[in-house]
Amino acid sequence: MKLHMQSDMTRTAVDRKILASVRNFYAAGLNYRSHIDWANRERGGGYKIPTQADIGYRSNNALICSGEDIVIPKDSTGPIDYEGELVAVIGKKIKNATEENALDGVAGYTLGNDVSERSWQKGDRTLWRAKNSDTFKPMGPSIVGGIDPMALQIDVRINGKTVSSYSTAGMIFGVAHYIARMSRYLTLHPGDVIWFGCDGPTVPALQPGDLVEVVNEHIGVLANRVTREG
Amino acid sequence: MKLHMQSDMTRTAVDRKILASVRNFYAAGLNYRSHIDWANRERGGGYKIPTQADIGYRSNNALICSGEDIVIPKDSTGPIDYEGELVAVIGKKIKNATEENALDGVAGYTLGNDVSERSWQKGDRTLWRAKNSDTFKPMGPSIVGGIDPMALQIDVRINGKTVSSYSTAGMIFGVAHYIARMSRYLTLHPGDVIWFGCDGPTVPALQPGDLVEVVNEHIGVLANRVTREG
Repeated sequence: MKLHMQSDMTRTAVDRKILASVRNFYAAGLNYRSHIDWANRERGGGYKIPTQADIGYRSNNALICSGEDIVIPKDSTGPIDYEGELVAVIGKKIKNATEENALDGVAGYTLGNDVSERSWQKGDRTLWRAKNSDTFKPMGPSIVGGIDPMALQIDVRINGKTVSSYSTAGMIFGVAHYIARMSRYLTLHPGDVIWFGCDGPTVPALQPGDLVEVVNEHIGVLANRVTREG
Repeated sequence: MKLHMQSDMTRTAVDRKILASVRNFYAAGLNYRSHIDWANRERGGGYKIPTQADIGYRSNNALICSGEDIVIPKDSTGPIDYEGELVAVIGKKIKNATEENALDGVAGYTLGNDVSERSWQKGDRTLWRAKNSDTFKPMGPSIVGGIDPMALQIDVRINGKTVSSYSTAGMIFGVAHYIARMSRYLTLHPGDVIWFGCDGPTVPALQPGDLVEVVNEHIGVLANRVTREG
């Protein structure tokens, strides 16, 4: 992935070619307190506040651009939830970074919608189809360098109505901390992406026909229509 | 990834270029009964026999070829275990396959060593460094088409002594079943790999200096030396 480093305010549109160059797809999952509290109330407990920055995974097959449709599989019973997230796009090899220099390896930031099928998330042994069915990972609309990842406002709108609004300042473990810790054990590569989780509830559930938008003033609007398979 | 399809007995060496072309990295994890029984005895229970074929994930950063070193991170307290596994390498796009035609999309089969740091596997929230530290995923030595994935003998040797020996016939969910089920929700792409888990105990633990080999008569010997960082 050819991207400028984040020293200045750069902007790269996320298109199919950028998505195809995504390599390792990391996701923090639980990284904001009020989302964990809500998930426990909603899904009967079991989620603890993380005491260390352990990263999880998503899968590239599910990536789509802004403007493409989220397709709910025909046998899904739902609910299907949005999760609007900050995404860091890695621009160069990172190994044994410190928290002080970790962000030097980030090409820029974009937005992700970690679409989740909650009945599968609850019942399956892994998150595979709950989080990684084809089209479940909208990412974009642009990768922007030169912004502070810990001071971004992220909103989610459904059909124009704001349903979620939070600041990345509320992360339990910040972007630099995650990158530094991950890079002690693994090499981050250009084209790797890290999704940082979302804060608060993720309701109401998405319905076929809905337009869901993840919004940040610097990055833009990640907009996807929800449809149903078949 | 340019590979012949599996209709005839083809052979492609796994080199750095092949590893770099691996895209989505799927892993069944628990897919043999006696390995699950052993894991429960060893790690205090909690692993159920899967009732449906839910796939998990590993990460490309960890892949190495036969002949390269497995490097134990310096702060690992271990134990470090081998897991010798069958790997299916996808050769073409697969979506909505049936069990009858699922194997038509497989370019061939190779071997994997799902190296695992058991203290991190037990204590961390995810499998990230326990299973995906750099060098923890040896794969090779060759991708072979035209063989029956459900009738392969897989042995593991440490310093020439056989420590594990099982048949892929013991899978709880077979290769065709996994691919067919996965492809109902996601598109499999050329270069995707699926690791199918291992049977039985995975002892004794690996020590620095050990040579660990995963062996199949058709695919060959995946051989890696164990070293310690720093």
